[in-house]
Parts: sequence; structure tokens; C-alpha cells
Amino acid sequence: MRYTRVSVGGRAVWGRVGEEDVELLAESPLEAARRPSYPEAGPTVIGTVPLTTATWLPVVVPPVFYAVGMNYRRHIAHARAVQPTRPEVGYRANNALTGHRAAIVRPAGVRGRFEAEPELVAVIGRTLWHATREEARSAVFGWTIGNDVSARAWQHEDRTFWRSKNSDTFKPMGPWIETDVDALAQTTTLRVNGEVRAAFPTGDMVFDPFDYIVEITRHITMHPGDVLWMGAEATCQIEPGDTVDIEISGIGVLSNTVRGETTERHQQS
Amino acid sequence: MRYTRVSVGGRAVWGRVGEEDVELLAESPLEAARRPSYPEAGPTVIGTVPLTTATWLPVVVPPVFYAVGMNYRRHIAHARAVQPTRPEVGYRANNALTGHRAAIVRPAGVRGRFEAEPELVAVIGRTLWHATREEARSAVFGWTIGNDVSARAWQHEDRTFWRSKNSDTFKPMGPWIETDVDALAQTTTLRVNGEVRAAFPTGDMVFDPFDYIVEITRHITMHPGDVLWMGAEATCQIEPGDTVDIEISGIGVLSNTVRGETTERHQQS
Repeated sequence: MRYTRVSVGGRAVWGRVGEEDVELLAESPLEAARRPSYPEAGPTVIGTVPLTTATWLPVVVPPVFYAVGMNYRRHIAHARAVQPTRPEVGYRANNALTGHRAAIVRPAGVRGRFEAEPELVAVIGRTLWHATREEARSAVFGWTIGNDVSARAWQHEDRTFWRSKNSDTFKPMGPWIETDVDALAQTTTLRVNGEVRAAFPTGDMVFDPFDYIVEITRHITMHPGDVLWMGAEATCQIEPGDTVDIEISGIGVLSNTVRGETTERHQQS
Repeated sequence: MRYTRVSVGGRAVWGRVGEEDVELLAESPLEAARRPSYPEAGPTVIGTVPLTTATWLPVVVPPVFYAVGMNYRRHIAHARAVQPTRPEVGYRANNALTGHRAAIVRPAGVRGRFEAEPELVAVIGRTLWHATREEARSAVFGWTIGNDVSARAWQHEDRTFWRSKNSDTFKPMGPWIETDVDALAQTTTLRVNGEVRAAFPTGDMVFDPFDYIVEITRHITMHPGDVLWMGAEATCQIEPGDTVDIEISGIGVLSNTVRGETTERHQQS
């Protein structure tokens, strides 16, 4: 099943994605999934919008937005970085989230490398504390795609990632949450204006999502809707005017355009 | 005015704090404040609970939880750190929030210094982007108190602050949001078991909250309910069994007890 959120009359509504339409749902499938009757009954459908005209929102606004740094073997080798010996996590900020097909805005002050990072994202479906690996596995509601857009000069000159990775629109996430996929057996492909710029096995990680969830929940309660972004093996430069597509086989394609900052107020979602 | 959230029948309800009771409100004052009729009408009162029996929740669950590091002149001098030349911000995670009078749980794995950090907190009341200093000033809905509990060994050995500052219960915030106070002209006092362990002028900062809001909103949209924790001049060790009080004159007292982790599931809020 594929779940997402779309904007209907300015309001965020959960939807189930079909071949031609998004079926609008009366409630969050993350809530519905916690009831004993799910998935037989499923959430009530209250309308539809065609895929072609849907306004896609970030698939969820997470209570906590976890992000993994150096986690792909070849990325670590390429960067001549030290391989992590335990799964450690960082954070991103919700203001930066934007949806499938929305614009990534490059701020006027950005100089140097401005890059896309194609990432697998786990969406948590249950409250978890001191999880075993099996509990971690069954607590993942589904999988989506993230683009960890990064302004490298700011990343190097700032004490934290606050503006290099968390400026508005720097975190596209979507197009939907896929609940039925072996997410670690897929291929991640990054395309700019249709040209392949990177492709790598989605699962070639030092620590997988379940390792992270086990480690995080030793000290931290995870909640339904929390997201865990899993890092990237490769990145590429993006420019205003570009269209950036991130495909993860078995999940879908997250597509966004890039534009330069104008004085005009940019779209929030 | 003093606003807070309390737990009523297991649900979070906004309240207005009086001399003897918390008046329960039909809606968030952060929402009500955006209507033209506010503050004359104010939110509808739907009940009361006595102060003595109230179950205090974190005053807000922020869309984004901003935190300032080295920001007090004497703290920087004492740590022999380099004084920041611009206002840079980091993040904390909502899972770590807990309320006034709730327990701070010291995880079983913590070794070495386990400390309280008494902080002034600004609560944002409006959507802000490219704010002037005057807009920043008028966008602060009110002020509360935070305890940035920190496990120093983890802080030094980990790549990020994920467990050193974001383990469950490490971020008490409360007891309420005070809307009528000159927050930078107050005194912050840290007491353990009634004994004063630190006291400093709340406003002796390198960059004040409005400097931070102006800088953040150059790249980031801030939203109602966002919180900005302003750092501390001094910290002190805390142990299971201790009662930690942080007082900021003109705002109130945030009081929490400390206990060691047990195998039992600890209280979430």
C-alpha cells in the first residue's frame, strides 16, 4: 500500500495512492494501524483527487526527524572517513520539509557546492522503547525517499548544520510511504534533468535501519510518525533550473525542481 | 498572563494559571492569539484543576526545538572557549521533553558528570521569515524555563548530542509561559535540594533571543510554538534523589526530581 498526504483546500489530508487517483482518507493510517481492525477495515475514504493534479505534501510531519550521516561503505571510503563503530544519529528540522514536485529554493547567500543526497527513509509506526531487532523490524510502518539537500560552504563554516541542511525547502520527502517492499534489496538512482548521476545498492550500509532503531531506543522512545533518514552513497551538484529525481526501485520517484531565492515569499508546505 | 498545558484524563489540555487553579482552555492560546479578537475575548474556559493536583506537561510541543550553545559571557570565559562571532543555533528532540514536577531519569549507562543547565526559553507566537529585530521582538509569545540536562561523558564521546542531551526526560520545560515579563532583566537561580548552586543575570548574553530570531529567519521560517533555548552561564551536578529547582525571577520555578533508571517503563508526557 502507498500512503501520502496531499493539500486539499489548503489543508493536509492523508491519502492512499492508486493507479490514477489519490483516495482521501478520514484519518492517518499511522493511527488506523494501531487499531485491532486494521488492515482489514482500513481508514474510511472521503474523496479522491487525480494523481495528475494532486498537491503533494511531505508524507508526514515527524515528532522527531532522525538523520544518519556516514553510513554507506563506498561513501566512507571515497571521503577517506573513519568507518563508524556504532550507529549514531543526528537531527534535521521540520521547517525544511517539502513535498514531491515542490521547489527546492537555493538561498541567495549560497556559494560553492549545492548538492542533492538521495536517501532511503524509514517511517516508524509504533511506540518503541528498548526494542529488539525483531521489534524494530515490525515497527517500521513503511518506506519513503528523502533528498538531504546540502549547502557545503555553510556545512564547513558553521558550528552546526542549522542552515547548511535545514534551510526552508532543503528536505523534500515523498512521494509516498510504501508499506510493502524489501527496502534494503533495492537500487537508489539519482537523476538530474533525466541524466543518471549516481546509482547504488540501497542496502549497502554499515548499519541498517534496524541497528539504528535498536540503538536509539536504548535511551529514547520512538513514536509513530518519527522518520529515520539513512544517508547516501553518492551526491551531485544541483543548480536553479534543474529537475532532480530520486528513484528507489520498489518505492517510487521523488521529483523536485530547483530555483534561486527571490524576494518573493516562497511556498510553505 | 501565564499559560501551560496539563494532563486531564490522559489528554493534553491548555490552561491559564491563576492563584489557586489552572483554568482549562478550549484551544491553544497560540492559536487564539492569531485571531483579531484576542486578547480581549481570550480562549473559552472549559473547567479548572487546582494547582496542587495539576499534572504539568511541557508547555508546548514545538514544531522545531532550537537550542543555543555557548552564549553567556562568563560561561565562555570560564570554559576558555572562543566567543561566537555570529548567532548559530542547534537542535534538541521532542522525545526528551518532560513537564514541571516530572522525574528526570538518569539512564543506567550514564557515567561521570550528569548536570543541570538552567535556561531561559523564548516561545514563538507568529510565523516569521526575514524578520527585523522589531518583528522578532513582537513575535515572542512569552517566556518559560528549560533544564538542558546533559550527560557529559556521552557528550564528549559521541559524534552528536543524540543521547547526551536528548535521552527521554532530559529536557524539562515549564512550569508555564509568562507573557508579561522583561525576560532579559531577570535573575536565573539554580538550586539543588534547596541550596543555591548558581545565580546569574538572565540577560548577560553574547547574542540575545532577537539576534537569534533575526539570523535564523534569514533562511528558515519560524512557526508558532517553536521554542528557542538560550543557554546557561553555569551548570551543576545532579544525582538520583535530588530535587532541582530553576527559578527565573518574573517567570517562576521549574522543579524536577532526579531518579535512576529502573527496568520499569518510565512515564512519558
